[in-house]
Amino acid sequence: MDIATLAGLLIGAFFVLYGIVTGEMKTDNLWAFVNPSAMMIVGGGLLGAVAISFPVKELLRIPKVLMVCFRRRTDSPVELISKLVRFAEVARRDGILALEGVTDTIDDEFLIRGIQLAVDGTDPELIEQIMNTELDNLAERHTAGRRLFDGMTKYAPAWGMIGTVIGLILMLRNIEDKSAIGPGMSTALITTLYGAVLANLVFIPIANKLTYNNDQEVLIREIMIEGTLSIQSGDNPRIVKEKLVSFLPPEIRAQVEEETGERE
Amino acid sequence: MDIATLAGLLIGAFFVLYGIVTGEMKTDNLWAFVNPSAMMIVGGGLLGAVAISFPVKELLRIPKVLMVCFRRRTDSPVELISKLVRFAEVARRDGILALEGVTDTIDDEFLIRGIQLAVDGTDPELIEQIMNTELDNLAERHTAGRRLFDGMTKYAPAWGMIGTVIGLILMLRNIEDKSAIGPGMSTALITTLYGAVLANLVFIPIANKLTYNNDQEVLIREIMIEGTLSIQSGDNPRIVKEKLVSFLPPEIRAQVEEETGERE
Amino acid sequence: MDIATLAGLLIGAFFVLYGIVTGEMKTDNLWAFVNPSAMMIVGGGLLGAVAISFPVKELLRIPKVLMVCFRRRTDSPVELISKLVRFAEVARRDGILALEGVTDTIDDEFLIRGIQLAVDGTDPELIEQIMNTELDNLAERHTAGRRLFDGMTKYAPAWGMIGTVIGLILMLRNIEDKSAIGPGMSTALITTLYGAVLANLVFIPIANKLTYNNDQEVLIREIMIEGTLSIQSGDNPRIVKEKLVSFLPPEIRAQVEEETGERE
Amino acid sequence: MDIATLAGLLIGAFFVLYGIVTGEMKTDNLWAFVNPSAMMIVGGGLLGAVAISFPVKELLRIPKVLMVCFRRRTDSPVELISKLVRFAEVARRDGILALEGVTDTIDDEFLIRGIQLAVDGTDPELIEQIMNTELDNLAERHTAGRRLFDGMTKYAPAWGMIGTVIGLILMLRNIEDKSAIGPGMSTALITTLYGAVLANLVFIPIANKLTYNNDQEVLIREIMIEGTLSIQSGDNPRIVKEKLVSFLPPEIRAQVEEETGERE
Amino acid sequence: MDIATLAGLLIGAFFVLYGIVTGEMKTDNLWAFVNPSAMMIVGGGLLGAVAISFPVKELLRIPKVLMVCFRRRTDSPVELISKLVRFAEVARRDGILALEGVTDTIDDEFLIRGIQLAVDGTDPELIEQIMNTELDNLAERHTAGRRLFDGMTKYAPAWGMIGTVIGLILMLRNIEDKSAIGPGMSTALITTLYGAVLANLVFIPIANKLTYNNDQEVLIREIMIEGTLSIQSGDNPRIVKEKLVSFLPPEIRAQVEEETGERE
Repeated sequence: MDIATLAGLLIGAFFVLYGIVTGEMKTDNLWAFVNPSAMMIVGGGLLGAVAISFPVKELLRIPKVLMVCFRRRTDSPVELISKLVRFAEVARRDGILALEGVTDTIDDEFLIRGIQLAVDGTDPELIEQIMNTELDNLAERHTAGRRLFDGMTKYAPAWGMIGTVIGLILMLRNIEDKSAIGPGMSTALITTLYGAVLANLVFIPIANKLTYNNDQEVLIREIMIEGTLSIQSGDNPRIVKEKLVSFLPPEIRAQVEEETGERE
Repeated sequence: MDIATLAGLLIGAFFVLYGIVTGEMKTDNLWAFVNPSAMMIVGGGLLGAVAISFPVKELLRIPKVLMVCFRRRTDSPVELISKLVRFAEVARRDGILALEGVTDTIDDEFLIRGIQLAVDGTDPELIEQIMNTELDNLAERHTAGRRLFDGMTKYAPAWGMIGTVIGLILMLRNIEDKSAIGPGMSTALITTLYGAVLANLVFIPIANKLTYNNDQEVLIREIMIEGTLSIQSGDNPRIVKEKLVSFLPPEIRAQVEEETGERE
Repeated sequence: MDIATLAGLLIGAFFVLYGIVTGEMKTDNLWAFVNPSAMMIVGGGLLGAVAISFPVKELLRIPKVLMVCFRRRTDSPVELISKLVRFAEVARRDGILALEGVTDTIDDEFLIRGIQLAVDGTDPELIEQIMNTELDNLAERHTAGRRLFDGMTKYAPAWGMIGTVIGLILMLRNIEDKSAIGPGMSTALITTLYGAVLANLVFIPIANKLTYNNDQEVLIREIMIEGTLSIQSGDNPRIVKEKLVSFLPPEIRAQVEEETGERE
Repeated sequence: MDIATLAGLLIGAFFVLYGIVTGEMKTDNLWAFVNPSAMMIVGGGLLGAVAISFPVKELLRIPKVLMVCFRRRTDSPVELISKLVRFAEVARRDGILALEGVTDTIDDEFLIRGIQLAVDGTDPELIEQIMNTELDNLAERHTAGRRLFDGMTKYAPAWGMIGTVIGLILMLRNIEDKSAIGPGMSTALITTLYGAVLANLVFIPIANKLTYNNDQEVLIREIMIEGTLSIQSGDNPRIVKEKLVSFLPPEIRAQVEEETGERE
Repeated sequence: MDIATLAGLLIGAFFVLYGIVTGEMKTDNLWAFVNPSAMMIVGGGLLGAVAISFPVKELLRIPKVLMVCFRRRTDSPVELISKLVRFAEVARRDGILALEGVTDTIDDEFLIRGIQLAVDGTDPELIEQIMNTELDNLAERHTAGRRLFDGMTKYAPAWGMIGTVIGLILMLRNIEDKSAIGPGMSTALITTLYGAVLANLVFIPIANKLTYNNDQEVLIREIMIEGTLSIQSGDNPRIVKEKLVSFLPPEIRAQVEEETGERE
């Protein structure tokens, strides 16, 4: 599990609360920040805006998309490249059909499909087209998922501001007691706070994380496509490795040497 | 009908109103938010700006564009792929001319046109060019429709702000009674509220939905183009299926297997 | 003439003024909004910024660019396609040289040039290159014209804000009479109003209209290029029509059928 | 010299000052706007931010980049095309080697280099590659120069705002005399004014002008590349002219006819 | 070491502090700007948001990424080109295998790898593919590093604003003593100041510097790729130089002449 996401939420919340309690602006009452009406305006407005923006089908995918942020990614490009180089050795030694058996050792549907197409003797250009189409559509779907959070990123502060404007309109309207202005404004500002915290502690960070995860997954997939095509074309395992390590930063290339060396 | 759009509007409006009525900022008078002058400034300014931005012809398309947001999309990519795979089987078994009859079972003009061109023995490159030109221009027109809402998305809060500035200028100008400042400001802020709600509950969500719908339609059309070309080139139905399922997320590919399996 | 542009200006101005006069914020004095100093600051700042941003040569083109927004576009893609299909029939029947005579019936320099090149037997690739270069540079020049308005779109509200800051600095500096704060602020806000109205009723809408007009013209030009090349390559008129209607939305394709049918 | 840049600065400054002096907000003391502390905060913050953003080497290029905005551009595309057409005539009549002599009549290094490569009998593809690489890197360097001004465009208002916040914090901190609030705020706002004027009268307009100049220079260079390649391939001078005038707006093409006609 | 980064920080800090102390807004107490609660809210919120946005692995790279901004770049394109031209001379004279020895004189892994591949007689297209893949992934990783600072660039002012809203809510809530409003607001504004200074003196400038450094490194790498391929294809050293100087601004090309001339 990727604890950074959870830790980030807790860190952010803790420091903010600690700052409030200990600071010059100390207060014995954190309840000042709990306001059901404000929650309803920001939450309801946000919910309504999102429900119009995206079809129900997409909204139901939110929990799944969120899970992605909490799940620890286990695919290591180093391991993947080592595996592909070993496949290249097998294919070079025993023919491409010998790869039929190794697909059991892979737990990624995308790579299995590619290797299977190669074993079936499919035309290389067709394999490339099929795998690229799949990758493009994967990235496209990730973009759609992220767009949902991008949307909330904009709606949250906007509805926070709307709530404050509503509060100000109501308060300023019939002021008799001047001393009520302060507390009234204080209450009106709570929706702005809600909107800003939702955006800057939840939605924007999650949208960023989704972008990051997508980039990682696309990288892994690109290595898989390059590897499958290189293996099928009967490249020397050394060439396969040479091609694939180009995707990695220089400092971790040594790890590939090690891994592939151990097994040779 | 896609009830999410309507539901979203109602949800947003309900929660906001409920928040107003029940909260600390309770008021027995929702009429505080109804102000004809404010409506005129925001609405009139918005209308004027839009009328300059786009030709009348485009403005008349607004209702039609809006309808798209309320209409439930019925094209399922799974069904479409199953249909195309069946066409591939027919073409493989009885020749491409046998597809002449099946066009009656399609209710999409775009696909009918593609199949018809293939049956007529048109050059594959020409088919690809014609279908891609059509798809590009479809996306182009969708973009134009969305740009209209993008425009309103910017104009609405801007005119809300302009209304507030007008209100402040008039109010601050001849203040004799200090107690009039509060209500005056309250009134001036109403246009800001109108502009912000219009933008964040109506225009931005609709622009988002139009983007989403366009992406879906482009996906469907891309599958149609790929399918038509694959069928015409006499591909094995298995290859056709392999090519087309690459457009789908892995988790719903099984449905294609099922659908095409049942009929085999 | 495209009356929408003028109508939009009037609509916007009318509703805003009507809103001011009839509303709660009624005033018998619209002169409150006329302030020569404010005009000088916003107008002068805007003028200075624009004069630095663009060379004089471009600034002199502003009236011409503006005219484009008020002129009604008369090129109809439907008519153009019908004309090109008729040309294709002539070329097919009497040879491409027969098109020499028809150029008199065209009133577009771009299309005349393309047909002339085709009649001269110029290499198709060269025709494509020449016409595309011309189209690219047309779009480039349109972009330059629009950039001018995009610039003003940013400068107007900025200078409005600068005017307000100047006003506030002067007013707050030596306040003796507290009752002067209100009117002082009122005056300072007028520049903000000028800037915002200029941007949202004039510059942004015009920039949008220029974008729209450019897109229309590029579409027309693309049809002309495709048509010229298709005619020169001796395509069947039916194929020419098939290629060109792909640029149109399905609902108006029937009109092309009608127009070209009538004349056959 | 391009006087527009200087004129713009003067126009902007003049109208703003005139507006201040003559307006309702008249003051006999323009010194209210001169504040050394404010200058130090805005200028120092801006300087620090820029020094971190770009290496010293780039900062030293600022005066040179600025010069570009004040220098009048003398390259006219019309003249350039006429010259290239004449070169095409020479090359056609006397062979490409005859161009060896004409390079003395050119005062542009880029074109001289291209012609020289053509005269040397370099492979056309290599010429195209070399000239395009040079053009790409020219545009790249222009972008780098412009990015510097884009940076200042953002930093100036930001540091203006920071100065105002600093001023407010200090002033609000120990208020005893209520009458000091006005003047204090007035002083705090001066940094905002500095930042906004710097951005909207200097940095943004200059960044715009640099963009414009770059576009012009790229256009000139593209004509040079096209012309050189066309001449080398032995194109008929009529074709060379046909290709090159496509880069010009229709209304000034007649000038090319004239120029090239006169000399024939 | 690139002292500009450090100097920029000191310049910015110095002028701002000097401005504060000497100005009209002089204060004998800079401690007004030190507020632990404000630091906790801005710092904690920022930390939390960043921890969610990026995986721990990336966050650990921050110090390394920062180092890049303080390190002086030593690769000079002029020197690199001179070296490549000398390699071309060697390869031309003694055969490509003679380059085996020269790799010891290179201290860049990327270039060594390219030369090695060329010496090994690898297919030119494969070399190009491998080197381009490596360059693309390098740029991709740089982008990822910069995105981290882009993120903080947005979070810092947002959390500054959130802190101010929190402060205002607490202060306005129970005001009894009117004279407490000023100091309360002063304190609330400190978080805004922190956020704005962090963004405009640290994060934005660093993000800009990273962009600049990346562009420089990509340029160097492009020259290496072009040079390696040109050498392998057995180009005349004069052609190699001609190709590579196209990457440089005209004014420093003479330096290459000099350097390569000296050694000939």
